[in-house]
Amino acid sequence: MSIAAFPGSFDPFSAGHHDIAQRALRMFDRLVIAIGVNVEKKGLYTAEQRKAYIEALFAASDRVEVCTYEGLTVDFCKSIGATHIVRGLRNAADFSFEYAAAQANKAMLPDVDTVLLPAAPELAFVSSTLIRDVLKSGGDAAPLLSK
Amino acid sequence: MSIAAFPGSFDPFSAGHHDIAQRALRMFDRLVIAIGVNVEKKGLYTAEQRKAYIEALFAASDRVEVCTYEGLTVDFCKSIGATHIVRGLRNAADFSFEYAAAQANKAMLPDVDTVLLPAAPELAFVSSTLIRDVLKSGGDAAPLLSK
Amino acid sequence: MSIAAFPGSFDPFSAGHHDIAQRALRMFDRLVIAIGVNVEKKGLYTAEQRKAYIEALFAASDRVEVCTYEGLTVDFCKSIGATHIVRGLRNAADFSFEYAAAQANKAMLPDVDTVLLPAAPELAFVSSTLIRDVLKSGGDAAPLLSK
Amino acid sequence: MSIAAFPGSFDPFSAGHHDIAQRALRMFDRLVIAIGVNVEKKGLYTAEQRKAYIEALFAASDRVEVCTYEGLTVDFCKSIGATHIVRGLRNAADFSFEYAAAQANKAMLPDVDTVLLPAAPELAFVSSTLIRDVLKSGGDAAPLLSK
Amino acid sequence: MSIAAFPGSFDPFSAGHHDIAQRALRMFDRLVIAIGVNVEKKGLYTAEQRKAYIEALFAASDRVEVCTYEGLTVDFCKSIGATHIVRGLRNAADFSFEYAAAQANKAMLPDVDTVLLPAAPELAFVSSTLIRDVLKSGGDAAPLLSK
Amino acid sequence: MSIAAFPGSFDPFSAGHHDIAQRALRMFDRLVIAIGVNVEKKGLYTAEQRKAYIEALFAASDRVEVCTYEGLTVDFCKSIGATHIVRGLRNAADFSFEYAAAQANKAMLPDVDTVLLPAAPELAFVSSTLIRDVLKSGGDAAPLLSK
Repeated sequence: MSIAAFPGSFDPFSAGHHDIAQRALRMFDRLVIAIGVNVEKKGLYTAEQRKAYIEALFAASDRVEVCTYEGLTVDFCKSIGATHIVRGLRNAADFSFEYAAAQANKAMLPDVDTVLLPAAPELAFVSSTLIRDVLKSGGDAAPLLSK
Repeated sequence: MSIAAFPGSFDPFSAGHHDIAQRALRMFDRLVIAIGVNVEKKGLYTAEQRKAYIEALFAASDRVEVCTYEGLTVDFCKSIGATHIVRGLRNAADFSFEYAAAQANKAMLPDVDTVLLPAAPELAFVSSTLIRDVLKSGGDAAPLLSK
Repeated sequence: MSIAAFPGSFDPFSAGHHDIAQRALRMFDRLVIAIGVNVEKKGLYTAEQRKAYIEALFAASDRVEVCTYEGLTVDFCKSIGATHIVRGLRNAADFSFEYAAAQANKAMLPDVDTVLLPAAPELAFVSSTLIRDVLKSGGDAAPLLSK
Repeated sequence: MSIAAFPGSFDPFSAGHHDIAQRALRMFDRLVIAIGVNVEKKGLYTAEQRKAYIEALFAASDRVEVCTYEGLTVDFCKSIGATHIVRGLRNAADFSFEYAAAQANKAMLPDVDTVLLPAAPELAFVSSTLIRDVLKSGGDAAPLLSK
Repeated sequence: MSIAAFPGSFDPFSAGHHDIAQRALRMFDRLVIAIGVNVEKKGLYTAEQRKAYIEALFAASDRVEVCTYEGLTVDFCKSIGATHIVRGLRNAADFSFEYAAAQANKAMLPDVDTVLLPAAPELAFVSSTLIRDVLKSGGDAAPLLSK
Repeated sequence: MSIAAFPGSFDPFSAGHHDIAQRALRMFDRLVIAIGVNVEKKGLYTAEQRKAYIEALFAASDRVEVCTYEGLTVDFCKSIGATHIVRGLRNAADFSFEYAAAQANKAMLPDVDTVLLPAAPELAFVSSTLIRDVLKSGGDAAPLLSK
């Protein structure tokens, strides 16, 4: 059985994240959306709020689980028996970052492979940072939150 | 009439910014240099100092206006009736960032188009961060501030 | 009066090229679409076919002219009195190429400035090479040719 | 059932390709290694030689099939009922190319998703071009051909 | 006599830094490993700890010196009579940053040239940030700290 | 004694190549400018013409040698006892190519290290391809050929 971890801050979970998760579900038996919590950094939403939001989005799928974790992604992956890590790729800057992360994770946990999904072009500009900026300015973030 | 917004932090306005603004003036009827103010982040110069500095640089041109704004760039653009957003491009990392910003702005404000001007090679290394570092170290930032 | 040259091989002129040209028309008084002809390289379409195709697309606009040229882009620009060169940017690889071209052109013809327009995300994958591949395979290239 | 197409020229199939194929086998029920044949371009090996070589490598796996095809990758994918396309990513230049290809394929065949696997760092420099250069110079290409 | 400065935060000095320093020693008569101290930013290790750690690594080489400095790298280079600055390059994002830094340093100190060494592929994912994350999570950072 | 090979096609040797070679001379005891000859590809200049041109440029330096070679760069490096390979870096696209080449060469010849020199910004747009285009169009290539 294949189990993919989809790690991120998800503050908040964007339409781009949603798209990646749905596409991952077509490839893996189980998908664990893993909300990385950095206790030193206050987010816009609490980890619990993010978890509840994502769980609601995937309420219809019993193959999706939503978790929070602290510390290294590889330690979380080990704890759930993940076989893969899945991440989205929006542009060349993302690539440099994700490639290094993939190799770091492989060095620490060789049995878990990283899979990169190219962002849908109409969602490639969407980031959690952008959504937070729109929300802070009182703008309408709805089109950035769901497809 | 074409009206270009040139948004940035401009803390301070560099020789590279100056070059972009002058080239934009050759393309657009009016140029609004828009100083984005982030109330959560204390800059080296106040928004008023930055504004006064840029206004002095363009005192001779009645087609240039200098403004400060808070919040989303698209909201500012709407408020001034901008037809274009102009930004400089120094390298491939800049490109990834600016491409995402251009698409985000287009999604939120479809009638305003983004125009990217490649930095002059002799100014491509100049950034406001570098100038602040030079100033903090007591160095001579003059060649980085004006062409 | 501002005159922009939009140079390329345009073999064929794609939906992406069409988008760039239309956006350039919003910025410049005149737009000269300049089909670069490389006599050493046989294209899919002749220069005349490309010219006729593009002219038909812009038949309604008297501010657009379509030309063919051989040799350096800067020499063509000089011959038509261009004030700007306009080009599309689809990705980071494009950027490296276009940045070098912009600086080369500036070194040879300092008075003509290069303006880069970020490709619309839904068209960023479109290239003349792709269209030629689709046509050779008997596929339907229509969605790649016009918006 | 998931069926991944792994398309390429594979002239020859490198240690890097081998690694990608083995990792793809851990994700998909079936893997079809698809040798794209360009009749206008003479390769170092014939399509039949490449096919025989790859088949020998995967003789032990009944979930792998090796095919040759002409024309568009999407047409081949449709003919075999592929659910996914898998490709390796070695560097940022690869990314720009693969991102455009992924979007082009999605535009033409929306039901087939592209999955990108980051190259193993110790194999990221390996390319078929390099192997051909080594072979032409009488060098030892063995370490580049199998892991 | 050639004197290379190898500047960085080195919080901590990684296996990647170690590799770059050893390779630099094969090119330059003297190597000065220069720990840049940012008084506004609290690191994981103090400047003294970093210095002691690096000195221990190079205790056997009398051509290596370890220093701490505040302010601009160019000012430090001038103070030690450096002829070169050496830096590692891990990926395209690094390149954009290092290229700008090299040009900035050259503009301020034309006689000192920057030399970039491509990271060993098996170490290209190693960063001080990664090591700090591993240490904070109670993981084993030893393989990231020495070759 | 350090011996650097500076390999390239040099068809022709540009102002950018000249700059890299002069900077390499400040780092290495000997510099061997190595003109790679591809018998399958007719250049603008013959290998002998390129060699004579470069030799004339460095006639005053007895630490420079100019050679032609066929086949793999690593085989040439071995034949001259090179300790280093030196190459220029103009942009992020160059980096992807040069990084792969450096790792390929290291895999085949571990004792020879690759050193990358960032191009001078005012020369970063110069390429042999550009110079050939200018020459074919009857333009003045002099500023591109020497500093």
